[in-house]
Amino acid sequence: MGESEEVKLLGTWYSPVVLRAKIALRLKSIDYVYVEEDLFSSKSELLLKSNPIYKKVPVLIHNNKPVSESLNIVEYIDETWNSSGPSILPSHPYDRALARFWSAFVDYKWFPAFRAAVITKSEDAKEKGMKEVEEGILQLEEAFVAISKGKPFFRGEAIGFMDICLGSFLVLLKAREKLKGEKLLDELKTPSLCKWADKFLSDETVRNVAPEIDKVAEFLGELEAKAHSAASKS
Amino acid sequence: MGESEEVKLLGTWYSPVVLRAKIALRLKSIDYVYVEEDLFSSKSELLLKSNPIYKKVPVLIHNNKPVSESLNIVEYIDETWNSSGPSILPSHPYDRALARFWSAFVDYKWFPAFRAAVITKSEDAKEKGMKEVEEGILQLEEAFVAISKGKPFFRGEAIGFMDICLGSFLVLLKAREKLKGEKLLDELKTPSLCKWADKFLSDETVRNVAPEIDKVAEFLGELEAKAHSAASKS
Repeated sequence: MGESEEVKLLGTWYSPVVLRAKIALRLKSIDYVYVEEDLFSSKSELLLKSNPIYKKVPVLIHNNKPVSESLNIVEYIDETWNSSGPSILPSHPYDRALARFWSAFVDYKWFPAFRAAVITKSEDAKEKGMKEVEEGILQLEEAFVAISKGKPFFRGEAIGFMDICLGSFLVLLKAREKLKGEKLLDELKTPSLCKWADKFLSDETVRNVAPEIDKVAEFLGELEAKAHSAASKS
Repeated sequence: MGESEEVKLLGTWYSPVVLRAKIALRLKSIDYVYVEEDLFSSKSELLLKSNPIYKKVPVLIHNNKPVSESLNIVEYIDETWNSSGPSILPSHPYDRALARFWSAFVDYKWFPAFRAAVITKSEDAKEKGMKEVEEGILQLEEAFVAISKGKPFFRGEAIGFMDICLGSFLVLLKAREKLKGEKLLDELKTPSLCKWADKFLSDETVRNVAPEIDKVAEFLGELEAKAHSAASKS
């Protein structure tokens, strides 16, 4: 990396999608300045200016040019620092297409269903939503078996694009498991993903940048308490 | 392209997203077998088997391996036949990130808002939705000016990824303009996108594979008549 390169990451410590950028930067051994945003009180001018469309984290700012959307950032990091560290996307176009297909599935189908099921106040909608989420996990289990072909990760022997995409949600899932006893990865129904999750969370790169499950669980509990107290006041 | 290569595209003649795959294949001069699907009566076994998650077109089947999701297909085509025809994605990582960012904006924000506004029966929701759609068009106008830097296309002198992504919807927009007088691209508000749209629709590659606007308008009219008659029967 050249002396004059300036890399900045705008994020929040608990965000699964920010974790994606952190993992990718660490895989490529990129030095960067990390800026913690406070999305609850006020977003920084830099965030609003850098991501005017979504006003969300993560934003990667490389030599004053902002890149938004977490998977987009991971691809950008992979392509920009292609000669340092392992390549994050597979090299064969078909394997890349599979990684992109399943990542889009996670971001635009599976996780939105999960978030909606978690947020909704209707018990009916929650039950229906969680069924969709569980069905999605079974589809991901099948995809993992097909793609990994007996190797520990989607990407093979080491973590890659799809591992980062789905793996970034594991801290949140484990934190909710702690807080609510909600268990989405099940040794009987999704044995391969269970093993993969353990491998992912104990991967050295991931451990170095992932937030602690206990801390995230505590944070989720606080958020929930605030939401309850706001609801009881209204 | 090797003698033994087998390329098949499952599609419907009127689909904007299928058009993306057709444009990309034509840009790369790839011979392929086109299979028209009938999504209204019954989907083919091949479609259900090739895209079990979404059961949607387009699906590209290359040497018996299926690739789904239109932008994913376009990237796959660009990477697989990288030495034939122009490259569809820009070469610099930052330009690629911009193309991917705005394409995701079109597919996951702008078009879903448009579809929801068109489908809803509530006049209020329609009005609110169309405002979001128009705001999106203004954001795309701004993005076009910033990215194209005075050149005719997002990609520069010739069409590329983002042109294909947004341009694929132009036939539908023009058909609705004909049918309903609904005008989303406006010479005053979005002068650059208006010029771009004319350029895109008169591009030789696009003209060769795009459905006729009149035919699509007629088809949309028939669909609407069917929906009305079904609604009045229920």
